Amino acid sequence: MAPHPFTILSIEETRIARDVVLSLHPDSVVDFREIFLKEPNKELMKQYLEFEHTAQPGQSAQSKRPPRLAKCQYDIIGADKIPEYHESIIDVETRKREKHEVIGKQFHASLTLWEFDHLVKACDESEEFQNILKEFKLPDGFELVIEPWPYGGLDFGAENRRYFQGLCFAQNMKSGNPDSNFYAYPLPIIPVMDAHTRKICRVDRLATGGKGDGLTGKTHSERILDHCEQAEYVPELLSGGTRTDMKPINISQPEGTSFKVTDSSLVEWQKWSFRVSFNPREGAVLHDVRYEGRSIIYRLSLSEMSVPYADARAPFHRKQAFDFGDGGAGNCANNLTLGCDCLGVIKYFDAVIVGSDGEPKKHPNVVCLHEQDNGIGWKHTNWRTGRAVVTRQRELVVQFIITLANYEYVFAYKLDTAGGITLEVRATGIVSVVNIDFGKTSDYGNVVSGGVLAQNHQHIFAARVDPAIDGHNNTVIYEESHTAPWDKETNPNGNFYEIRKTVVNRSEGLDAAPQHNRTFKIINPNKKNKHSGNPVGYKFQPPPTQKLLASPGSLQAQRALFAQHHVWVTKYEEDELYAAGRYTLQSQLEVGGVHDMVKRKDEVTNEDLVVWSVFGLTHNPRVEDWPVMPSEIFQVHFKPSDFFERNPAIDVPSTKNEASVLTNECCSTSQKL
Amino acid sequence: MAPHPFTILSIEETRIARDVVLSLHPDSVVDFREIFLKEPNKELMKQYLEFEHTAQPGQSAQSKRPPRLAKCQYDIIGADKIPEYHESIIDVETRKREKHEVIGKQFHASLTLWEFDHLVKACDESEEFQNILKEFKLPDGFELVIEPWPYGGLDFGAENRRYFQGLCFAQNMKSGNPDSNFYAYPLPIIPVMDAHTRKICRVDRLATGGKGDGLTGKTHSERILDHCEQAEYVPELLSGGTRTDMKPINISQPEGTSFKVTDSSLVEWQKWSFRVSFNPREGAVLHDVRYEGRSIIYRLSLSEMSVPYADARAPFHRKQAFDFGDGGAGNCANNLTLGCDCLGVIKYFDAVIVGSDGEPKKHPNVVCLHEQDNGIGWKHTNWRTGRAVVTRQRELVVQFIITLANYEYVFAYKLDTAGGITLEVRATGIVSVVNIDFGKTSDYGNVVSGGVLAQNHQHIFAARVDPAIDGHNNTVIYEESHTAPWDKETNPNGNFYEIRKTVVNRSEGLDAAPQHNRTFKIINPNKKNKHSGNPVGYKFQPPPTQKLLASPGSLQAQRALFAQHHVWVTKYEEDELYAAGRYTLQSQLEVGGVHDMVKRKDEVTNEDLVVWSVFGLTHNPRVEDWPVMPSEIFQVHFKPSDFFERNPAIDVPSTKNEASVLTNECCSTSQKL
Repeated sequence: MAPHPFTILSIEETRIARDVVLSLHPDSVVDFREIFLKEPNKELMKQYLEFEHTAQPGQSAQSKRPPRLAKCQYDIIGADKIPEYHESIIDVETRKREKHEVIGKQFHASLTLWEFDHLVKACDESEEFQNILKEFKLPDGFELVIEPWPYGGLDFGAENRRYFQGLCFAQNMKSGNPDSNFYAYPLPIIPVMDAHTRKICRVDRLATGGKGDGLTGKTHSERILDHCEQAEYVPELLSGGTRTDMKPINISQPEGTSFKVTDSSLVEWQKWSFRVSFNPREGAVLHDVRYEGRSIIYRLSLSEMSVPYADARAPFHRKQAFDFGDGGAGNCANNLTLGCDCLGVIKYFDAVIVGSDGEPKKHPNVVCLHEQDNGIGWKHTNWRTGRAVVTRQRELVVQFIITLANYEYVFAYKLDTAGGITLEVRATGIVSVVNIDFGKTSDYGNVVSGGVLAQNHQHIFAARVDPAIDGHNNTVIYEESHTAPWDKETNPNGNFYEIRKTVVNRSEGLDAAPQHNRTFKIINPNKKNKHSGNPVGYKFQPPPTQKLLASPGSLQAQRALFAQHHVWVTKYEEDELYAAGRYTLQSQLEVGGVHDMVKRKDEVTNEDLVVWSVFGLTHNPRVEDWPVMPSEIFQVHFKPSDFFERNPAIDVPSTKNEASVLTNECCSTSQKL
Repeated sequence: MAPHPFTILSIEETRIARDVVLSLHPDSVVDFREIFLKEPNKELMKQYLEFEHTAQPGQSAQSKRPPRLAKCQYDIIGADKIPEYHESIIDVETRKREKHEVIGKQFHASLTLWEFDHLVKACDESEEFQNILKEFKLPDGFELVIEPWPYGGLDFGAENRRYFQGLCFAQNMKSGNPDSNFYAYPLPIIPVMDAHTRKICRVDRLATGGKGDGLTGKTHSERILDHCEQAEYVPELLSGGTRTDMKPINISQPEGTSFKVTDSSLVEWQKWSFRVSFNPREGAVLHDVRYEGRSIIYRLSLSEMSVPYADARAPFHRKQAFDFGDGGAGNCANNLTLGCDCLGVIKYFDAVIVGSDGEPKKHPNVVCLHEQDNGIGWKHTNWRTGRAVVTRQRELVVQFIITLANYEYVFAYKLDTAGGITLEVRATGIVSVVNIDFGKTSDYGNVVSGGVLAQNHQHIFAARVDPAIDGHNNTVIYEESHTAPWDKETNPNGNFYEIRKTVVNRSEGLDAAPQHNRTFKIINPNKKNKHSGNPVGYKFQPPPTQKLLASPGSLQAQRALFAQHHVWVTKYEEDELYAAGRYTLQSQLEVGGVHDMVKRKDEVTNEDLVVWSVFGLTHNPRVEDWPVMPSEIFQVHFKPSDFFERNPAIDVPSTKNEASVLTNECCSTSQKL
């Protein structure tokens, strides 16, 4: 049987796509970047899903299957020519190319990890860089480490070539441990590589001054690392070792999990069903999310994030990663480990990844799936009788974790027994740091350790929700609660407040307004709740986090126009998946992102629409973020709002958990009161 | 050995206090309301704690012990007189009265649960009420249920007597089950009892109309319950029963807990230490919270909450509970059950409660203490070596749950391995409802079931933080991040943003400002972080939830002036524990609350100060909140900010949890990919 249309390409399918591309460029060197599932056209999928969910036993949806397509991204390398970036759509069943685009030079393909290797090699080979390096006397036993980064926004007016930059550190290798934390020893130089020539074309020197030293204050003392301090996190190097008094918490499911996974990608759990896929850019994606067969979301994904740095000194304005568009969240996904990244009974999903030769291989354990308890779900005690009924909230978690050089992000989709869907992001890892002269402080960040300035920055995330509330024709409204005027006829005691509803008629960007309790509802205007008479819907309150701070018109702001609003509502258009546009690497302007989409001013009432949720963190580091920062947690909650006819968790059993014990029954170390 | 000064009064101590009071009022009838620990004078406690934490082995802090005091609240009942409300402070060691106050008639003592019984009895005995009741034909097998409520704010100009009101419902007793959900059958009458005469003095008739019916639209059909629908939540009455496919999640600690409890009230866990107490008004309180012996918080408590309803129709403006001041959160605390309210290895704390005769008895299991896992604490992968170090975030949870008629609240203090303290509130239980005519909808709420209007309302909580950041002299500042002007000299690329700091010099009320990333820091200006040079501190971002919506000057607004701001900073004064003042029952104006405290305009820099955090929920009910609402969760996070010299969780071990398993290893029901 052929795979479900939302199931990712198998290794075999990926290889077919690769071979077709190679056969179509017989006289060229083809350097592959990505090969992954081109998701089916939505109109075809609507028909397929409609058939699949209403099919009688024995009826097969196979005949309705849309074509099985692979998106192939690759460079064509010619002698002495700048490589040409191509994108092809290959039908892996007919082995035909359905579409072919040569992407213009104004856009840069997302980076690949092997381009990072080129940078390290170019530094090795660069006489200029090696000479500059000699200006610094590294302490004995220290070795250079180059941390490749995307180049950031190409300065206005600069020549449009492909670049990479390297942040430089020194690593204490006296212990022989390659995981000694080199970020504690930043060097104030940034080599820049021309990606076409694979040569270092420039070495930027970084200011190391503090308050009052202006934009260019540089010490460049040859003993620049002498005031830096060791800051280890791997347990075997940790001064003082790890604590020994933390007793294990074990989570077990002796009767098995409440979820099941069938047909590779279909997850069913507590009346929910959905498909999981994974792609190099967005990581894990949920499709066709339903509750008791009722459609809620067609596609749910993390779409983009931007991390602009606020240090005013050049070239730090170019520290601005787009971690989905530049390098691909899926590419950077961790291979998860049982008992570390998730506790309990875990189901892992693998993905497929390709090398520059297009050869696919398994990318194991990139997504984990498990159930967890989230405290009291609902409770009521009848105080007359003393009868308490208490149920737990159970969650199903789809999680993936990415590492982007120093930082990590933990992304999770959580479905719960109350019909809610929560998007959770945890930011952890190591903050990005630069050298600062001994004894100085700075307006650009916080000194978190000797000589180490953790620069102020923001993380702005965009999630994409393609809703299908009981069907694809939906409307977005927002509701606010307002103090009503004190009025003898309508509000004689001054306690009344009114709920104001606003329909989003045309595509636009909107903001959170917690002072008015602004709540967005995605409704199906064609179906009403039998009790309330309101249209069925799901609601969310956008986290009212600070928006992008970079000045309007600046490189940082222009590249991330999606960060201008907390919520965007757009009409569904094929292939519009990315909040900051398809091509973010070295961009000077967001092109084809949500800011462009809303310019169409499409009608979005009773339409197939998309809702984008933008939220983030202004991260002015604290000393406690060093050397590895404790997770900062963000959540966006989507909750049913008159979608159901009662609390969907009302039938969750209030069974007593028999494994729970009193401290004095469990062990000898705890004390009795 | 005498109890620690923060340990609650024992049954014996409580009885002594009772006996002393009785002996001082020999010729009167004494009706007790509460007897509980009067916490020691702070100046004395500072000295005691200083000695306790620096004492050499063998040295005893006993000689520094402040007096052991009981606060006794009681009515003196005279023949035909309105009872007189008294408060006495009794020294339970010397058996002497230290203070005696006769509270003036302008204030009402908090209610007791036995006053609710009086109301039910008065309704039984009231001819007027019984006659009105006969206007309604209850369905066969239905019985009246009266839900006593505080009277709410006394209308401006009304006679100042003590009243109680009863919300009326009918219960389907055909099943014989006394836990059948009577809230599904609301009756449109409210009997009002004069608490002094214990007689029904008035029966208010409620409007049952909908949109367009104005403030007084009443149907009062005798068959008013015919369009109501059964809405059960106890499992044995649930139509369709409970789901059967939810497999248990068991949490175990085979090596015991990581915490220990000694000396009745001292909790030590993962470098944290604190004392737990419990009182009738605030429930669980934390005292002397320290990390590695360094003081952080002197006292942490939930202080007040107000729940005003927005239905414009009289007498609903008087639906406004102050659940701490009116009835006492501690009095309404649930006796918690193992395996239901908390999972894992649990330690319970008991409290002591008195009857109207002052006789104390154990109030068992009112607080639970347990550890839990909260996902990934920090993680970093060195992508060069592939080495991942991942640690879990562990939390210690101090939880109590209260039932206030229809509603419940789950309050938790969570301490974590990253040095953070989280206050969590979950709102659950049954929304407050009134009858609405068949087929109508309303501007005052949402129809969640046939004939049942769930009225719009707010929940506004106030937490009280008495900080002691490395000592008692602290300062509050707030920091904001602002776009900086684009300027060739200081911000040539437009990416710089500036951090603006404001010192709170004098006591005042302040607001959240998420658009500026406004972050409050409680600092010790006398001690600097060795890396950053910043004063050591803890920070929090006030949740920017909507403030009170009732019109300024209205009864609801005047009674809850604390709800005018998200943050209040006041200078510490003895006995200022309650955000809305000591006496909230039937208040017309907040007296002695934070709004009055800030009027002193005390200097609060480098002072012993108190920070109040106000947050809440505008709750416009959805159908999914019926019949029991899924928990709505609120959290306030206090995090170290340059308090430590590195991430305090950096030494948490990254040990693999050996109990975690793959789905295909755990059971047969899950499917392999």
